[in-house]
Amino acid sequence: MARGPEAFVPGHVTGFFSTHPANDAVRAGSRGAGVALSDGVTVSASDGEQRSLTLNGETVSMAAVDGVLDRLGVDARIEAETSLPISAGFGVSGACALGTALTASAFTGTNRTERELVAIAHAAEVDAGTGLGDVVGQAYGGVPIRLEPGGPPHGTVDGLIERRRIEYVSFGELDTAEIITGDTDVLSRAGEQALERLRENPTIERFMDQSRQFAREAELLTAQIDSVIERVEDAGGTATMAMLGESVFALDDGLTAAGFDARHCSIATGAHRR
Amino acid sequence: MARGPEAFVPGHVTGFFSTHPANDAVRAGSRGAGVALSDGVTVSASDGEQRSLTLNGETVSMAAVDGVLDRLGVDARIEAETSLPISAGFGVSGACALGTALTASAFTGTNRTERELVAIAHAAEVDAGTGLGDVVGQAYGGVPIRLEPGGPPHGTVDGLIERRRIEYVSFGELDTAEIITGDTDVLSRAGEQALERLRENPTIERFMDQSRQFAREAELLTAQIDSVIERVEDAGGTATMAMLGESVFALDDGLTAAGFDARHCSIATGAHRR
Repeated sequence: MARGPEAFVPGHVTGFFSTHPANDAVRAGSRGAGVALSDGVTVSASDGEQRSLTLNGETVSMAAVDGVLDRLGVDARIEAETSLPISAGFGVSGACALGTALTASAFTGTNRTERELVAIAHAAEVDAGTGLGDVVGQAYGGVPIRLEPGGPPHGTVDGLIERRRIEYVSFGELDTAEIITGDTDVLSRAGEQALERLRENPTIERFMDQSRQFAREAELLTAQIDSVIERVEDAGGTATMAMLGESVFALDDGLTAAGFDARHCSIATGAHRR
Repeated sequence: MARGPEAFVPGHVTGFFSTHPANDAVRAGSRGAGVALSDGVTVSASDGEQRSLTLNGETVSMAAVDGVLDRLGVDARIEAETSLPISAGFGVSGACALGTALTASAFTGTNRTERELVAIAHAAEVDAGTGLGDVVGQAYGGVPIRLEPGGPPHGTVDGLIERRRIEYVSFGELDTAEIITGDTDVLSRAGEQALERLRENPTIERFMDQSRQFAREAELLTAQIDSVIERVEDAGGTATMAMLGESVFALDDGLTAAGFDARHCSIATGAHRR
């Protein structure tokens, strides 16, 4: 069993989004904006006769990772390590899918480019129902603005240039699949409006403002999240909800200044092989 | 005088290229492939009544940097620091232009996105005649393949996923402006062919092979560069010429294994504010 390559994929929190279904999973996706986090997922692949996936040492199953291996036509042993909260809006499944594409592709007979592998991971994540924009945002890095939905060559991503300290805290999971496959009309209208307003003035403060407004208008804000955001604001900071999780992220020291025991990281560059 | 933001822009060596002139400098550019280097340029901007540029502490003048400041409509004091050889094919002027866009933009009344700032820096570099693809490659990072010429939203960039140690050595300058504004028919035909062959099998070895072949076919190889590349090959390594400089870069320890006193770095992620 040959030890294969390793990749780092940043975490990704979405601030606001609109859903854009399509029959072709590469064309489907979301528009919106988020932040790529230096706390991310390290993925390594080894050539194996049997397919397996471990996350922090535990054997797990992820439809998005299986979808990537199916599309690559390869079986591999995938090991993923992360300090991020799982299923809580930090893009861990997207990171595992993209990391698998960037590493397990080494065991196929075909050499693929970055864009081809991002498209494969994006489509697998969309088909798995676990995300619509994380993979694209994680590939781009920084503060990605998804202008047009879909993976390469269909989607278009721009970014904010600002780099700040990010703090985050998580209280648990939300069911992504249930929300993004349900009735998303109200959500998508709010997301489109937030995107338009961010493009009028592309700053990280406007991104946070529009994200908070989106969470309210899309009725995704839980009572707990709402009270955390309010406490951060009362302490003079800026925070919003990580879509889709029972999680909050803040600029600078917003959460700790409001008395929360938060983790912190920085804004990261995009996913890459190591 | 307010101290402003700082940006890091990777160095960039081009292996092969074709030139694609256009009346609109954002649409003009090159197709081709190169490598973004972790040895790069750190640029900081301070708000100043008087425009000035220092490179490693020395006052210099760069048409591409002036072009960026003109487009932004701002005067600023720009300080650039680099350990890279200057005017030798490592993309220092492109890095200074992009770094200026990413930092001096803070002193304008308009907030711009990454793509807008990359377009400004690319156009300024093209108009200055000092480069056709460095800025786009430096913004993308990794091993950028410029599929379509021009800055955002016109150009298209993909990338190789491989990450390797890069060694380099420089013996001096070549006049970029003289070559890229001269008769480029033979060069561009060779560059287009190299790009086609790289896309058939997108690996870093194929990139190096096609780059070496391009340098020969485009008749850019000097006797000195040719003999260095040959010595690296004799020692079992892989090297090619940095376009456009009297410079050679090699994979892994190719140059040191052949007895050269080379510098080394890694393949870098794209340019970003710090």
